[in-house]
Amino acid sequence: MHTGFPLNEACNLQVRKLEISDKSKGFVELLQQLTVCDAISDEDFQKQFQELSSLGDDHVICVIEDTSCGKIVATGSVFIEKKFIRNCGKVGHIEDVVVDRDSRGMQLGKKVLSFLTDHARSVGCYMAILDCRNENKAFYEKCGFKQKEIRMVKYFI
Amino acid sequence: MHTGFPLNEACNLQVRKLEISDKSKGFVELLQQLTVCDAISDEDFQKQFQELSSLGDDHVICVIEDTSCGKIVATGSVFIEKKFIRNCGKVGHIEDVVVDRDSRGMQLGKKVLSFLTDHARSVGCYMAILDCRNENKAFYEKCGFKQKEIRMVKYFI
Repeated sequence: MHTGFPLNEACNLQVRKLEISDKSKGFVELLQQLTVCDAISDEDFQKQFQELSSLGDDHVICVIEDTSCGKIVATGSVFIEKKFIRNCGKVGHIEDVVVDRDSRGMQLGKKVLSFLTDHARSVGCYMAILDCRNENKAFYEKCGFKQKEIRMVKYFI
Repeated sequence: MHTGFPLNEACNLQVRKLEISDKSKGFVELLQQLTVCDAISDEDFQKQFQELSSLGDDHVICVIEDTSCGKIVATGSVFIEKKFIRNCGKVGHIEDVVVDRDSRGMQLGKKVLSFLTDHARSVGCYMAILDCRNENKAFYEKCGFKQKEIRMVKYFI
């Protein structure tokens, strides 16, 4: 637990894009804190990693590694949608943001959000959007987001 | 106005993917009923059409053409997001659904939604999602969607 330590002294945090070696650093276990995410075989992970990497700037996964222990402690992704509206504009869709339960209270979520929104802005998006539970609304407001509309879901399985 | 005519007698409706010639059939003007969408030059339209077409099944725009007058009267798009969660699952994001104001009440929105959700299901998505205003919630519920979560937005421009 790092709570109570000044951030830079408590651990060495590296904010960067996902690397294929992050599977062995707890990336999948971190996603399991977010939602249904079974174990992924090395082969499937590699395949999906390459699939997503092939999208280049149109799909970016941010991770924060605590390099003092080689563990991924936060993540989030953004993919870029291209539209005809808004002068053939682009929208950054932020998804799957999660901070390790033992690393909360260190503004890691905010850092992930900054990384993802900076990316979306840098590739020319006119906005970034995300969906969240009502209980997380205040957090995203602190990150500069405002509620607009509701999210509707249809499950196929 | 087709209101009051049985659907099949009133006009000939074709539900299909967007084609490049749909620009001259009022596709952009239809999007202008949805939101900010300036006129798009033929060159920009062609460029964006090709960009989106290159995504294949990962980005599909549905249109409904009234072939009796050669006019696009409804549209909507879906793009497929690939994830690590849910066994490297896929989600269909439905965007930019609009029905021409003179063609409402003919279930065209429902047809567009069916086309897009069928596509998402056919490529293996575990769910389809969309964002909408509260006032359109009832419509999407009729299409089998349920509210889950809220949508947060950050504008860059």
